[in-house]
Amino acid sequence: MYRIGVDLGGTNIAVGLVNEDLKLVTKKSMPTRAERPPEEIVSDIATLCRAVCEEQGLALGEIACVGIATPGIANRDTGVVEYANNLPFHQFPIADRLKAQLGVSNVRIENDANAAAWGEAVAGAAKGSKNSVMITLGTGVGGGIIIDNKVFSGFNYAGGELGHIVIEVDGAPCSCGRKGCWEAYSSATALIRMTKEKLEECRATGRATIMTDQPKISGRTACDAMRAGDQAAKEVYDKYVKYLASGLATIINIFQPEVISLGGGVSGEGQSLIDSLLPIVRKEQYGGGVVPMTDIRIAKLGNDAGIIGAAMLG
Amino acid sequence: MYRIGVDLGGTNIAVGLVNEDLKLVTKKSMPTRAERPPEEIVSDIATLCRAVCEEQGLALGEIACVGIATPGIANRDTGVVEYANNLPFHQFPIADRLKAQLGVSNVRIENDANAAAWGEAVAGAAKGSKNSVMITLGTGVGGGIIIDNKVFSGFNYAGGELGHIVIEVDGAPCSCGRKGCWEAYSSATALIRMTKEKLEECRATGRATIMTDQPKISGRTACDAMRAGDQAAKEVYDKYVKYLASGLATIINIFQPEVISLGGGVSGEGQSLIDSLLPIVRKEQYGGGVVPMTDIRIAKLGNDAGIIGAAMLG
Repeated sequence: MYRIGVDLGGTNIAVGLVNEDLKLVTKKSMPTRAERPPEEIVSDIATLCRAVCEEQGLALGEIACVGIATPGIANRDTGVVEYANNLPFHQFPIADRLKAQLGVSNVRIENDANAAAWGEAVAGAAKGSKNSVMITLGTGVGGGIIIDNKVFSGFNYAGGELGHIVIEVDGAPCSCGRKGCWEAYSSATALIRMTKEKLEECRATGRATIMTDQPKISGRTACDAMRAGDQAAKEVYDKYVKYLASGLATIINIFQPEVISLGGGVSGEGQSLIDSLLPIVRKEQYGGGVVPMTDIRIAKLGNDAGIIGAAMLG
Repeated sequence: MYRIGVDLGGTNIAVGLVNEDLKLVTKKSMPTRAERPPEEIVSDIATLCRAVCEEQGLALGEIACVGIATPGIANRDTGVVEYANNLPFHQFPIADRLKAQLGVSNVRIENDANAAAWGEAVAGAAKGSKNSVMITLGTGVGGGIIIDNKVFSGFNYAGGELGHIVIEVDGAPCSCGRKGCWEAYSSATALIRMTKEKLEECRATGRATIMTDQPKISGRTACDAMRAGDQAAKEVYDKYVKYLASGLATIINIFQPEVISLGGGVSGEGQSLIDSLLPIVRKEQYGGGVVPMTDIRIAKLGNDAGIIGAAMLG
C-alpha cells in the first residue's frame, strides 16, 4: 500500500506519496505561513495529502498511513505536538485534527529530526541497521536516535537533542541559550562564522586568501578555497572538522551505533568530509580495534528523509 | 528463587546472594589478584558462589541465575568479555567457564557500570522507571543507560561510556587518552585536582583557607571546608558543580530519562549536591516547563548496585 509523509517546516509544508519500495512517488508543497492559526496549517496539509493521491489516482482509503514530521516536541503516543519553537503549536492535537479532516484513522507524528533519522534507517544510509544515529549539519545541528529499530527520544519525547551537548563549557553562544553546544561549532552557521573570523584575521594581518574574492560567504566558501590550495581556508576547515570529529567520537562513546549518517548542507562535501573526520574519530573513540566499529556515512535521502521517515512511522 | 551477583573488580571479587525481594542476603569477597591467568580468577568466583550458597544452606541448583558485573566490554549475548583494561581478559568466555565450574546453566555477564545502573533501575533510586541513566562519580566517571527496561550499550556492547563525552575540546587530559572528557572534570579525582590547584593558588597569593590544615586532600576536603564557611573551598565546589551540571544537562538533552541516579564517592554529599546542581541543570536543559522533567537522585544501593544488578540480569 501507499503511504503519505508530511514534512512540516517553519517555512514550507512538503507532502509526499511513498510506495511499497519506500520510494517517493510524488511530492507537493506550499508555504507554511507559520503565523496562522494551527487549524489552517492542518487544512493545507490535508489539501496537499488529497492532491498527491489525486495525482496518482488513489483514494485516501488506499493509504496505509499518514505520518507528520514536525518541529518541536512530538508526543508519538497521543499525536499531540507539546510545543514547537517556530510554529504556533502548544499542546496541539495535530494527529486528531488531520484524521478528522481526511477521514483516515492512521495518522502518526514524530519530531522532524527523528523522522529524518528513521527515514535514513529504513530506506537510506543506515538501511539494514538496528541502531543508528543521524546528525544533520545545517542551520543548526539536529540529531535523531534509532535504537532497536525504534525512534528513541526519552520518556517525554524531548530527547535526541544531539546538537545541544556542550563540547566547550563557557564556549560560543548557542541559539538554545546554552554556551558551547556542539551546534555552535558544527552547524553550517558555525562554519560560516569560523570562515568570517578567519577573513577578519587575514584582513587585519594583511594575509592573502582567495576567500576574500567570494561575493558571499557560505558553508562552501572555506571548503572550496581549501581544495583550491588556500592555506587560510584549510585552517578554517581543519578547525571545523576537529570539533565535528570530537562530537562524533562522543556520540560513538555513548551509543556505539552501527551507523552514523551525516545529513544537511555541510554533508554535501561528501566522502572527502568523511575521510577528513575518520582519522580523528577513530583516535578518540572507545573500543577501536577490539569490537566492530561504527560506520560514518553521508545520508542518502537528502531533503526527502523527513517525508519518507514520516510515511514509515505507522 | 535466589540469585547470585558477582562484582568482579580490578582489586576485589565480591559475590552476593540476592533474594526474591531483591535484597542482598549475604556477601563474600576476596582479592582479585588481576595478574593471574583468567581461569584462576573464575575458580575463585566459583568458590565464592559456593560459599554464599552454603552459608544460607542452599544448593547451587536452587539458584535462578548467576550474573557477573565485569570491567571492560562484555558481550551479553555470547558471555564473552571482549576486552578489559585492568583484567587479563581478551575475548575470554567467562560465562561458559563459570557454567562449567559451577554446573549451572544460567550465567549472564554485563559491564560493571551497566550492571550498577541496572541494579539501581530494578531495586534502587530509579526503581519503577523504564528509562534511566546512572552516573558514578568515583575515580572515574562511569555511565550506565537503561532504555525500555533493558541495558543499552550499542551494537558492539562498548557504548554507555558517559564519562568520555568531551565537554571541553583540548581540555584537561583524561585517562582514556582524549582531552577534556567529562571524567576529567567531574570524577572525584578531578575534584581533588581542583582542590589542589586552589590550594596552590592560595599559597602563591597568601590567601587564607582552612583547607591548608587538612592532613590529606580528598574529594571531601573542599565540600567540608565550604560548609565550614571557607570561601576558597566554595570556589572549588562551585567550579566542580558547574562542570557536573553541564554534563548532566547534556545527558538530559540526549536521553530525557525519567531518572538520573548519581553514585560513587562524590554522591556521598547527598541531597545538598543535588540542590546545588538542579538550578544549573534546569536552566541548561531542553524542554523545561513544557514536558515532565528528569528526576536527579542519589543512588541507593551503594557498592552493592553491581552485585544486585548482576544478579538480576538473568
